[in-house]
Amino acid sequence: MVFPLSSVMARLEMLYTSDHASVVSMNLFVALLCACIVIGHLLEEHRWMNESITALVIGLCTGVVILLISGGKSSHLLVFSEDLFFIYLLPPIIFNAGFQVKKKQFFRNFITIMLFGAVGTLISCGIISLGVTQFFKRLDIGSFDIGDYLAIGAIFSATDSVCTLQVLNQDETPLLYSLVFGEGVVNDATSVVLFNAIQSFDLTHLNPRIALQFIGNFFYLFLASTFLGVFTGLLSAYVIKKLYFGRHSTDREVALMMLMAYLSYMLAELFYLSGILTVFFCGIVMSHYTWHNVTESSRVTTKHAFATLSFVAEIFIFLYVGMDALDIEKWRFVGDSPGTSIAASSILLGLVLVGRAAFVFSLSFLSNLAKKSPNDKINFKQQVTIWWAGLMRGAVSMALAYNQFTRSGHTQLRTNAIMITSTITVVLFSTVVFGLLTKPLIWFLLPQTKHVTSMAFSDPSAPKSVTTPLLETRQDSDGDFGGHDVPRPTSLRMLLSTPSHTVHRYWRKFDDAFMRPVFGGRGFVPFVPGSPTERSTHQWQ
Amino acid sequence: MVFPLSSVMARLEMLYTSDHASVVSMNLFVALLCACIVIGHLLEEHRWMNESITALVIGLCTGVVILLISGGKSSHLLVFSEDLFFIYLLPPIIFNAGFQVKKKQFFRNFITIMLFGAVGTLISCGIISLGVTQFFKRLDIGSFDIGDYLAIGAIFSATDSVCTLQVLNQDETPLLYSLVFGEGVVNDATSVVLFNAIQSFDLTHLNPRIALQFIGNFFYLFLASTFLGVFTGLLSAYVIKKLYFGRHSTDREVALMMLMAYLSYMLAELFYLSGILTVFFCGIVMSHYTWHNVTESSRVTTKHAFATLSFVAEIFIFLYVGMDALDIEKWRFVGDSPGTSIAASSILLGLVLVGRAAFVFSLSFLSNLAKKSPNDKINFKQQVTIWWAGLMRGAVSMALAYNQFTRSGHTQLRTNAIMITSTITVVLFSTVVFGLLTKPLIWFLLPQTKHVTSMAFSDPSAPKSVTTPLLETRQDSDGDFGGHDVPRPTSLRMLLSTPSHTVHRYWRKFDDAFMRPVFGGRGFVPFVPGSPTERSTHQWQ
Repeated sequence: MVFPLSSVMARLEMLYTSDHASVVSMNLFVALLCACIVIGHLLEEHRWMNESITALVIGLCTGVVILLISGGKSSHLLVFSEDLFFIYLLPPIIFNAGFQVKKKQFFRNFITIMLFGAVGTLISCGIISLGVTQFFKRLDIGSFDIGDYLAIGAIFSATDSVCTLQVLNQDETPLLYSLVFGEGVVNDATSVVLFNAIQSFDLTHLNPRIALQFIGNFFYLFLASTFLGVFTGLLSAYVIKKLYFGRHSTDREVALMMLMAYLSYMLAELFYLSGILTVFFCGIVMSHYTWHNVTESSRVTTKHAFATLSFVAEIFIFLYVGMDALDIEKWRFVGDSPGTSIAASSILLGLVLVGRAAFVFSLSFLSNLAKKSPNDKINFKQQVTIWWAGLMRGAVSMALAYNQFTRSGHTQLRTNAIMITSTITVVLFSTVVFGLLTKPLIWFLLPQTKHVTSMAFSDPSAPKSVTTPLLETRQDSDGDFGGHDVPRPTSLRMLLSTPSHTVHRYWRKFDDAFMRPVFGGRGFVPFVPGSPTERSTHQWQ
Repeated sequence: MVFPLSSVMARLEMLYTSDHASVVSMNLFVALLCACIVIGHLLEEHRWMNESITALVIGLCTGVVILLISGGKSSHLLVFSEDLFFIYLLPPIIFNAGFQVKKKQFFRNFITIMLFGAVGTLISCGIISLGVTQFFKRLDIGSFDIGDYLAIGAIFSATDSVCTLQVLNQDETPLLYSLVFGEGVVNDATSVVLFNAIQSFDLTHLNPRIALQFIGNFFYLFLASTFLGVFTGLLSAYVIKKLYFGRHSTDREVALMMLMAYLSYMLAELFYLSGILTVFFCGIVMSHYTWHNVTESSRVTTKHAFATLSFVAEIFIFLYVGMDALDIEKWRFVGDSPGTSIAASSILLGLVLVGRAAFVFSLSFLSNLAKKSPNDKINFKQQVTIWWAGLMRGAVSMALAYNQFTRSGHTQLRTNAIMITSTITVVLFSTVVFGLLTKPLIWFLLPQTKHVTSMAFSDPSAPKSVTTPLLETRQDSDGDFGGHDVPRPTSLRMLLSTPSHTVHRYWRKFDDAFMRPVFGGRGFVPFVPGSPTERSTHQWQ
C-alpha cells in the first residue's frame, strides 16, 4: 500500500495515460472535489469559512496524509501544471465572470475599475519590485536581474478575489461588488500582460525607446484583446440569430456558445493576446446579445452550466494548490535556511499589503474628486474593504511564479526553490489567514444596514429586485428584467438615470438603433415558444 | 507556412503543452467543431446526411488539406488517442444515454435488449472470429494467434448506433428506438468486457476450466459494474436529498451530479470493471431519483448540459476519426500490397454483415416466440431495420483496434498497419456508405404511418405527448409528466399497463414503498420553489 500510492501521486499530471496509477489519482481527485462541495455546503452558514479555504485545507490535509503514507518519500506528490491552469481552468472562471456581471454597474464604474485594475496594478507592481530590490539584497537568496525583480512585482500584483466575492453580495453592495470584481478581472489580465511583456522585453538596457515600446505593447494587448472578445461574442450572436431562427435546438445552441467562448480564448492565445481579457469581454457580449437569441431552456442551461463549470474550476484550483504545496523537493532547500525563507515570505507579504494600500487609498481619493454625488463616492470603510479584498494571492501568482522560476532550468536551483516556496507560503497564508478574516471584517465594516444598500437606489436597475421574485433563481445579467420579450420604450429609464451618464445614453441609442436589430438582444428577437417559462408568462399577459 | 503547420498537427495529442504549436491545432479543432455544428444544422433537413457523417467528412477534408499543405510529409497528423477517447469522450455519451433513455420502454424490453446486446454480440464475435480464421489464412497478412482472432471478433462486434439514433425517433418508433439504443449500449459494454477478457486470459491453451473462468469473469464484470453504477447513483440521490433539503443551490447540485457521474465511471475503471455499463446505470438511477431532488433550474440545466456534452463528444469523435484516417505511415505498408488490404477490409465488412444478420434474425425469432401480443412482436421490416442499425462501426472499434495492434510494439509492423488501416476502412465505409443509406432505408421500411406509431399505444406513457405541449422542450425521462410535484395515486396507471408485466408492478410497489421515500424521486420530494416554471404552474393549479 505504501509505495504504490506515492508513485501513483507522482503521475497525476499525466492525466492522459490510462495507467491504473493515474486512474487511482483521478478517483481521489474527483472524490475530493465532491467532498469539497458537500463540506462547503455544510459550512456555508459558518462565520469564517468559505469554499476556497475549505478546498485549500482539504488539499493540504490530503497532501499530509499522502506524505505520511509514503513515509516522506514522495517528493513530487503533484506538480502544479501551469498549462492545465491557463488552458482549462482559468477560461471558464473568467468567462463566467463576464457572463454573470451586472453590466450596468460595471460600465458605470468603468473608469474607477480601470484605474484600480490597470493603474493600480502597475503601482503595486512598481512598489513590490522596488521593495524586493531593496530588501532581497540583504538576504542570501541569489542573484536576480532587473527582469526577475519586475517579474516578482507582477507575480505578487495578481490578486485572487474569489474569496471576497463569495462574501460580498451583488445585490446588497453593488458598488463595492462591481469595483472589487471588475478590478479583479482587469488586475488578472494586467498582471499576465505585464508579466509577458517583462519576459519578452530585454529590460537590462532600459532606455526611453524601449520603455515607450513597452507601454505601446501593453496598450495594444489591451485593446486588441478587448476587440477580439467583442468580435467573437458578436459573431456568435449573429450566427445563432441568423441560422437558428425559427427552428431552435437547445443542445446545438449551448454547444455553439460554449465552443465559441472557448474559441475566443484560444484565438487570443494564438495571436499572443491576453486570453483573460478576451474571454471576459466575450462573456459580456454573449450575455448582452447571444443569450437573448436562444430558447429559454438554453438560457437556463448556459447560465447555470457556465456558473457550475466556473465553480468546479475554482474548487479544483484551490484543491490543487493545497496538494501541490507539499512537494518535498522544493522545501528541502528551504530546510537548510529556514530563516531566509521566512524572511523572504514576510517581506513579500508586507510589500503586498503596502503596495495595495498605496494605490487603493490614493486612487480612491482621485476617483472621489471626479464625482459630485456623495452617494457615488467611495467612503473610507469601503476603501478598507477594497484594500482587504485584493490582498489574497492565488493560482495566477502560482502559475506565473512557476513560469518565471522553473524556466531558467536547474541552474539556480536554490534561488528558484526559495522563490517558489515563498510564493506558496504567501498564497497559503494570504488565502487562509486573510481569507478567514474577510467575513468578520466585512460584517464589521459594512453592517447590514441601509447605508450600504441605499447606494443601490441611485441605480436605475434597482427596481429589478421588485420584479424578480417571479423569476427568483435567475439573476438577470442585463440589469433589467420582467419583460424581456416585450420591447419597451427606454425613455422612462433614461429619465431615471442620472443625466451625467451621457456616454451610456448614447450607447443605449446606438445599441437600440443598430446593434440589437443586427445581433439580437432583449426585445429584438421574436418570441420563441421554447420553454415552459416563456409559454406561461406569455399566456399570462 | 508550409512546414510549421505540419509540425503543429503532429502535436495535437500533446494537448497539455502550452506550445504555440498546440494552440494552433486546438484553435483549428474548436473552429472545426463549430463548423460541424453549424453545417450539421443547415443539413438537418437533408435527405441523406446527418451530423456524424458531416463531421467525418469535414475531418477527412481537413486531413487532406493538411496533407497537401505539408506536401505529403506529415506522417502523424493526429494520432488517435485511446485514452482521450475512453477517459474523456465516451463517459459523457454513455451517461447521457442512460440519463435520457425512456426507462419504461427500456425495462419492458429488457430481456430482448440483453439478448441482442449480450448474446448477439457473442454470436457476432464468434462468427467474425471464425470467418477471419478461415479467410485470413489465404491472405498474406502475417501470423495471428487465437487471441488475435478473437480480439478481431470483439473489435468488429462493437457497433456504433449514433447515426441510426439520429434518424430513429423516440416518440414515433419507441419499440425500435429502445431496442436499437439499448442494444447499442449493452453491445458496447459487452465488446469492451469481452475484449478485456480475451486480452487477459491465455487462450492458446483453451480447456473447460479456463472457458468456465472466462464466462464467470464475464458475468462478474456485468453484475458488479451494474451494481456500482446503481450504488453511485443512489448515493448521489441520497446526498442531495439529505444535504440540500431546504436550501438548494443550483450550481452545487449540478456540479455534484456531474462529478458523481464521472466518479462512477472512474471507480469502475479503478476496480477493473466496465465503466460503460456503470455510468449507463448511474445515469438511469440519477434520472429516476437524483433528478427529482433538485431545483427546476438544476433539472433543465442537467438535462441540456449532459445532452450538449454528449453531442459535442460525438462530433469530436467523428471529426477525430476522420482526421486520423490519413496518417501516412500506416498507409505506407498498405501501398505495397493494396490488394491484401482491400481483400481484408472486404472480408471484414462481409463478416460484419453476416455476423449481425445471423443473430438479429434468429434472436428476433426467439424473442417473438415468447410474446403473445402481436403488437409486441418484432416484424420482418423492423428486424431489417435493427440489422441495418447496428452495421456501423465507430470509435469503439478504432480504440480497441489501436489497443490490440499497437501494444505488441513494432515487431509486427506490417501486420499491425494492415489491421489498423482495415479497421479505418471498415469504420469509414460503414459510417459513410451504410450511414448515408440509413435515412432512405428507414423511410422506405417504416413510412410515417400509424402502423409504427400505434405500437406506442400499448405503452401507458403515451398520453404524455398530450400533456407535454405545456412543457414542450423537455422530454420527461420518466415517462410521466404534467404533475411531477403532485403525488398521484398510481393505481390508474397500473390498471392501464398490461397485466403481464408483473415484475414491473412489483418493482413499482417496492419503489413507492421503500426506494422513493429514502432516495427521493417524483412525488416524494416536497415542492421546491426554485424556478419560474414551477412557480407559475404551481400558481395555476
